[in-house]
Amino acid sequence: LTEPFAGRLAAAVARRESQLVLGLDPDPAALWPQAHAAAEGSGEPAARAGRAVLEHCRLLIDAAGGACVAVKPQLACFERLGAPGWEALAGAIAHAHAAGLLVIADGKRGDVPVTAAAYAQALAGTTPTLAGIVAGLGADAFTANPLLGRDALEPLLATGAGVFVLVRTSNPGAADLQDCRLAGGERLWERIARLVDELGVVDAGCGLSDVGAVVGATAPEHLARARELMPHAIFLLPGVGAQGGSVEDLAPAFAPGAAAALVTASRSIARAFESDGADPQRAAAAEAQRLREAAWALAVA
Amino acid sequence: LTEPFAGRLAAAVARRESQLVLGLDPDPAALWPQAHAAAEGSGEPAARAGRAVLEHCRLLIDAAGGACVAVKPQLACFERLGAPGWEALAGAIAHAHAAGLLVIADGKRGDVPVTAAAYAQALAGTTPTLAGIVAGLGADAFTANPLLGRDALEPLLATGAGVFVLVRTSNPGAADLQDCRLAGGERLWERIARLVDELGVVDAGCGLSDVGAVVGATAPEHLARARELMPHAIFLLPGVGAQGGSVEDLAPAFAPGAAAALVTASRSIARAFESDGADPQRAAAAEAQRLREAAWALAVA
Repeated sequence: LTEPFAGRLAAAVARRESQLVLGLDPDPAALWPQAHAAAEGSGEPAARAGRAVLEHCRLLIDAAGGACVAVKPQLACFERLGAPGWEALAGAIAHAHAAGLLVIADGKRGDVPVTAAAYAQALAGTTPTLAGIVAGLGADAFTANPLLGRDALEPLLATGAGVFVLVRTSNPGAADLQDCRLAGGERLWERIARLVDELGVVDAGCGLSDVGAVVGATAPEHLARARELMPHAIFLLPGVGAQGGSVEDLAPAFAPGAAAALVTASRSIARAFESDGADPQRAAAAEAQRLREAAWALAVA
Repeated sequence: LTEPFAGRLAAAVARRESQLVLGLDPDPAALWPQAHAAAEGSGEPAARAGRAVLEHCRLLIDAAGGACVAVKPQLACFERLGAPGWEALAGAIAHAHAAGLLVIADGKRGDVPVTAAAYAQALAGTTPTLAGIVAGLGADAFTANPLLGRDALEPLLATGAGVFVLVRTSNPGAADLQDCRLAGGERLWERIARLVDELGVVDAGCGLSDVGAVVGATAPEHLARARELMPHAIFLLPGVGAQGGSVEDLAPAFAPGAAAALVTASRSIARAFESDGADPQRAAAAEAQRLREAAWALAVA
């Protein structure tokens, strides 16, 4: 039996002194030059691009992973290459695990219970087949969409992996539905936050819950309220860097402790070389270290 | 340039006299016996199971496809086999297209705009890569989750494929959030229905919109209201058969015309042989024909 995610995360954050999550959002038309050679040789374009995407992810993990506690592969970026993309995804996850990083699969899945159970198998479980047991991606945690309600989240929670439920996302359109005012006065996202709090089981050791929340770093005014509604949830905070959020706005998220919030950054790390002229790996390492230190300073303040 | 989805669907419904959509939700531990031989031979369990899943889908399409207008692969059921599962998915889509069927990829994706654009590439577009252009799944339409709002749906709509937005799903937990009463008096799903109506562009030829709606057949009391709010949307109606809905309850959905609603059925077709003792293909063909006739009678009534 594996220890629950919250406890594993808290231990990893303390050990690595980092709450930084390295986003893996590879654009197969704009990979690091050092990854291009992997696309040479024979094969269909998808297979060649898949090899280069994997090499890019490996280089990025090697450069920036030391400053991070986890990686967050964006499933869409791999799926668009079909089966070779899924192979690259599995390879990137294996590389991250070998580097001692946790893996948060970012696919924002959500479906009726019978289908949610199949997503649970794909992300963090196993599937019985006529040819034997097939392992899924082996993610330590994943993101999920709550629109289908409690019964649709339960098969995802049953995996034992950490689940980060979308509560208030970082895009402008999040206001369209998530900010709708309900009859009782609260906003829809606040109702979702209550659901997250109810569903979570708090780990006695670290005081954190196995059900976390995605709360966009682009709307820091929501963070204090979100923390009030979800005192034990681990917050996954996307939108730092390229999407406009800054680490310094995130203090309320860290209130319950160093592992209570994770800061994710993708393009700001992978594309750092474009603004400072350094080589990609060196620039990524420096930017990841800068973000790690900024978040850590907040968390231990 | 391809004709918009609504017009292509309307033509196909008229030609095939069917609004039935064959769900492809293969369980790799319970495939049709005729598909088992495909798992023999060498390879990892996932590769062997993937071959059998594809053979099962081919047999199912050959048996029941003649009574249908489209297939609806459930992406979760393929993803749980990893890269071989994605290969089986691509093979099933190719087989359905060769049989003259439209393909509705059921993945219920939804993400911030930059990631939604990557899902659009994966489902119905192409992706530029350093090794050349890579085609996505080639779906004619797909399902989408609207929780992230309008800007997150727009990249999906830009593909030109049909998009079926989740409005009111068929599971009991749908009530938790979708039925929340908003401050103005309407329920959340009614607000989503308005968004669907606003986003859609109506095809002058068939009078239907390129933005459709998933409305669960298990809550038929919602159908009349949904039709009022979305007079031009094509409804995708899951939950017929195994989930408890019956075709006869669906009349309001068909009010605007024969192609205004699609009835999906998966387990009730694929598992029909378990109750009537016939062989799987013969039982599937009979059940699909029964459902086709029931829906067609409603639509032309």
